[in-house]
Amino acid sequence: MPRKVITGFSNPTVKFVRSLREKKHRRLAGKFLVEGLRLLTDAREGGRLPEMLLMAQGRDEHPLLAELERAVEAAGGEVIELPIDLLAKVTGKDNPQAVAGVFAEWDTRLARIDRTAAPIWLVAQAMRDPGNLGTMLRTADAVGAGGLILLDDCVDPFSVEAVRASMGGIFTVALAQARWEEFEGWLRQAEGQLVAASLREAQPYRGAPYAAPCFVMVGNESQGLPEAYEMACDLRVTMPMKGRADSLNAAVAAAVLAYEVLAAVER
Amino acid sequence: MPRKVITGFSNPTVKFVRSLREKKHRRLAGKFLVEGLRLLTDAREGGRLPEMLLMAQGRDEHPLLAELERAVEAAGGEVIELPIDLLAKVTGKDNPQAVAGVFAEWDTRLARIDRTAAPIWLVAQAMRDPGNLGTMLRTADAVGAGGLILLDDCVDPFSVEAVRASMGGIFTVALAQARWEEFEGWLRQAEGQLVAASLREAQPYRGAPYAAPCFVMVGNESQGLPEAYEMACDLRVTMPMKGRADSLNAAVAAAVLAYEVLAAVER
Repeated sequence: MPRKVITGFSNPTVKFVRSLREKKHRRLAGKFLVEGLRLLTDAREGGRLPEMLLMAQGRDEHPLLAELERAVEAAGGEVIELPIDLLAKVTGKDNPQAVAGVFAEWDTRLARIDRTAAPIWLVAQAMRDPGNLGTMLRTADAVGAGGLILLDDCVDPFSVEAVRASMGGIFTVALAQARWEEFEGWLRQAEGQLVAASLREAQPYRGAPYAAPCFVMVGNESQGLPEAYEMACDLRVTMPMKGRADSLNAAVAAAVLAYEVLAAVER
Repeated sequence: MPRKVITGFSNPTVKFVRSLREKKHRRLAGKFLVEGLRLLTDAREGGRLPEMLLMAQGRDEHPLLAELERAVEAAGGEVIELPIDLLAKVTGKDNPQAVAGVFAEWDTRLARIDRTAAPIWLVAQAMRDPGNLGTMLRTADAVGAGGLILLDDCVDPFSVEAVRASMGGIFTVALAQARWEEFEGWLRQAEGQLVAASLREAQPYRGAPYAAPCFVMVGNESQGLPEAYEMACDLRVTMPMKGRADSLNAAVAAAVLAYEVLAAVER
């Protein structure tokens, strides 16, 4: 299949891809943009291919890129070449990566989650920072968690910043989005321990009786978890706070706790 | 002392404070900008007062702000009132906090560090992300670390983003900046265990023989630590990586490791 070549900034495809930097356009199209060969390769190896592959003219050849291109074409996707400065405009980066891809968003309903698939799950409530959200996806991958469940109004997990910070985690672990009420109902339908880092009637996080499947929950960056959510937990644990601050960064708290849970459920 | 009132955008003080958003101007002036009553109160309680306090007209009164104002005046600092939209322009925020302060940077030479003051120290090498750097300051505070030592070319710890992410940690823990060679020489002048998260001849991070004062080192976000730095460590430890990724976010790795060290040195 001959590649499509685009050279003009006013091209509708260029305008469309560029629009995906904004959440409202991602929502409308149900698609998102991913930059860089590394992330695109993580996606392919995680079973996801871009519907559209954008490659800069004059790029260095790379076997992984050739493989990606073949896979996209075999799956009926579109492969487009364009000048590097046009790719820079599309991605909004001064030094763009030589390749980018447009993916269809996938189903993130809670019903898609199989809790028996992993001993640990991460849960973030009203998370506002895309870097924190992406970091939690990265941590979920590292601790062998099944995925990340986003509660209430979180920042868009398909934003460029979140995808980048996830370091491929967006493609390798499951992702679900739900309101608290829905999550609580779903959680209690089967076995599952809900754990939060908390200051309320909490026990030390080390050596606490964690049990798989364990759902490790952290709250909004500035508000923390609503009291009702904490009280609904099976276990509230507290990490030492030796200094003046009374909390950790949300993604850091999730990771410290998740590694402790991992040690416990592996014993 | 009557407060100075500024109303015009072309005022030299406004221009000066605004310039502190850029690193080169911070370096020239040796000063940095801090936004918000919470951070300014952390600073005051940590023994640092702004040389200049900027307060929005029509702000809500607050006892902590009144206390801060008195302290700044008593120390011979300047207190300035200005319209909220002018403060927005100074800080570059659409919804500025009602108060900001200009601080003199302090001495961050390694010679200022007293390693016997704490059992744990964090070390970051060539860290590029201000959010990660600030998060490490916040974590340092939480684990009771003496402070953060920045090696080689790190992002500016006095940037607005780093200060904000530190959640006051910039004021509550020590900060040093040095080249690796200088740090290594200093470290070996006295007792101190250098530990890095590593994949090279590393042992499991849990239950490793940590010893105070323990220096927990993480490397650049994309390159990791140079091999020579890792080989100079007294202890190399590895955290489980259950998924496809081979590393954690640098600030996350530092925190998971630091909490493990804390548990060990407290035993």
